[in-house]
Amino acid sequence: MPSEFDLIARYFSPRTTHTVLAGGDDAALIAPGAGMELAVSTDMLVGGRHFLEGADARGIGHKSLAVNLSDMAAMGAVPRWVTLSLALPAADEAWIAAFAEGFLDLAAEHRVDLVGGDTTRGPLNICVQIMGEVRAGSALRRSGARVGHQVWVSGTVGDAALGLAHLRGELALDPLEAEYLLARLERPAPRVALGQALLGVASSAIDISDGLVADLGHIAERSEVRARVEWEAIPLSGTAQARRAEPRVLRCALAGGDDYELCFTAPADRHDEVRAIAARLGLPLTRIGAIEAGAGVDVLDAHGKPMPLAQRGFDHFG
Amino acid sequence: MPSEFDLIARYFSPRTTHTVLAGGDDAALIAPGAGMELAVSTDMLVGGRHFLEGADARGIGHKSLAVNLSDMAAMGAVPRWVTLSLALPAADEAWIAAFAEGFLDLAAEHRVDLVGGDTTRGPLNICVQIMGEVRAGSALRRSGARVGHQVWVSGTVGDAALGLAHLRGELALDPLEAEYLLARLERPAPRVALGQALLGVASSAIDISDGLVADLGHIAERSEVRARVEWEAIPLSGTAQARRAEPRVLRCALAGGDDYELCFTAPADRHDEVRAIAARLGLPLTRIGAIEAGAGVDVLDAHGKPMPLAQRGFDHFG
Repeated sequence: MPSEFDLIARYFSPRTTHTVLAGGDDAALIAPGAGMELAVSTDMLVGGRHFLEGADARGIGHKSLAVNLSDMAAMGAVPRWVTLSLALPAADEAWIAAFAEGFLDLAAEHRVDLVGGDTTRGPLNICVQIMGEVRAGSALRRSGARVGHQVWVSGTVGDAALGLAHLRGELALDPLEAEYLLARLERPAPRVALGQALLGVASSAIDISDGLVADLGHIAERSEVRARVEWEAIPLSGTAQARRAEPRVLRCALAGGDDYELCFTAPADRHDEVRAIAARLGLPLTRIGAIEAGAGVDVLDAHGKPMPLAQRGFDHFG
Repeated sequence: MPSEFDLIARYFSPRTTHTVLAGGDDAALIAPGAGMELAVSTDMLVGGRHFLEGADARGIGHKSLAVNLSDMAAMGAVPRWVTLSLALPAADEAWIAAFAEGFLDLAAEHRVDLVGGDTTRGPLNICVQIMGEVRAGSALRRSGARVGHQVWVSGTVGDAALGLAHLRGELALDPLEAEYLLARLERPAPRVALGQALLGVASSAIDISDGLVADLGHIAERSEVRARVEWEAIPLSGTAQARRAEPRVLRCALAGGDDYELCFTAPADRHDEVRAIAARLGLPLTRIGAIEAGAGVDVLDAHGKPMPLAQRGFDHFG
């Protein structure tokens, strides 16, 4: 019976296109282009926290790479190389095969080379590190938002959190609604092309992994400004839009993580360029607010009044 | 009470010296020098497999970086940047502080910048990825050994495995012997300077993490040659040398992992250069055999007869 090491070797044999040396040595060798910086990010996923125990292995493979691709998107970097370390409780061939398919299909879609990794026996743990290229000095950062800049978000927010609520039996949905929201939760589409398109246009960017208010709060903090967001402007998918008045929808849209959309700021005079990028990519980009002097994130209701987030379960943003 | 995230932020605040951007954004930014390739390696350590549960946290911090530094050594790369992902079962401040001290002291010693990472709640898991620079085309690989080249090893082998046997109560040692062997097990010194010194001299290299015969076997396989090793030539520390006739010492020296010495090959006419490197670094380098046509690894006894490894618990090298 093959060990987990044999199975990993079988399903993850390197097929690289832009790598000097991958696999079979003490380290991989990669060569960034002249004048390029490397953007480097890592995410560790643990069963029960980042995916439900028993979740579809193909989806876990997809998601473990997607969350890392999303970090490249937020920097405007071209994702190029990735390493994968796995702790596996057992040599489960069906699981490894499905996980590999989800991971490698997404890698192929984004032309990312899997260059190395490590496998060990232990409680399920997936650690991915990604490396991408970006022209020196041009990466999108969290620190560039300035007073008067507009705040934008891609796609729709809250979908993954609503999908999770449905999985947990807290929210009844019709099958088509559920299918859409679960796909958003389990197979997020990292906004890699958007990040690159925003280079030279956006003044700051972040991916929404912890929730819109929390992540926009990181931009506000690093840029030393306040972000003002209008609740009515926040883009919701059909299911959420139909329930916009429900407290759960508010909570999922503002504090639900795992959507992996980009939130970014841009000077007001780049407004038309942002719209043009949306048209070119076929991806909705919605202006949801503006940057002001101050600190933190304010969400205004339809009457322009700050919404009392602390009273609605947002204490940890206090 | 601080969370594990607060504690990680407190004890791991980045103090970098050669990094464009570290921490606080979606990715770190690094810039390899012109004409340099990046060597990239990752190792995942799990409690109970790579260190004993309850082991000294400072030692675990040291070792989790040391094993990655050792991969850079084996490639001849200058280690430069590292990321650290941690799954922690609880926010144990004393543990995190000690772990950070072991990790960061070794990082400082080797001038390695900690540029990013991830922290999550879960069964203890440590995943480190290291990136080092090496001039394009010059990295040491496993594939360069040729017939007639000499086989060398640094330091002494088997120490870590003997230390582990002592910890497990299988081997009685006097306190000074035990202290030395346990230090070899718990605080290995990666041979980073040696790896760099061997660039242009050695024809292949590997670090001894799985055991001398297994790791030299990787060189033989990748180079498509046979390695012949003389048991009597293999360098042992004092404790092991005094017990050289014991089966356990043989087993630890040939199959014990975790020493993180380098095993390498070099053409016979580079013999004096290798000796000069040993003198300059103050690190014993011992010629233990030679490369021949064929496949696999032969270990010869004092009479020049191949030792029957399979009968001594080496079946997994069959």
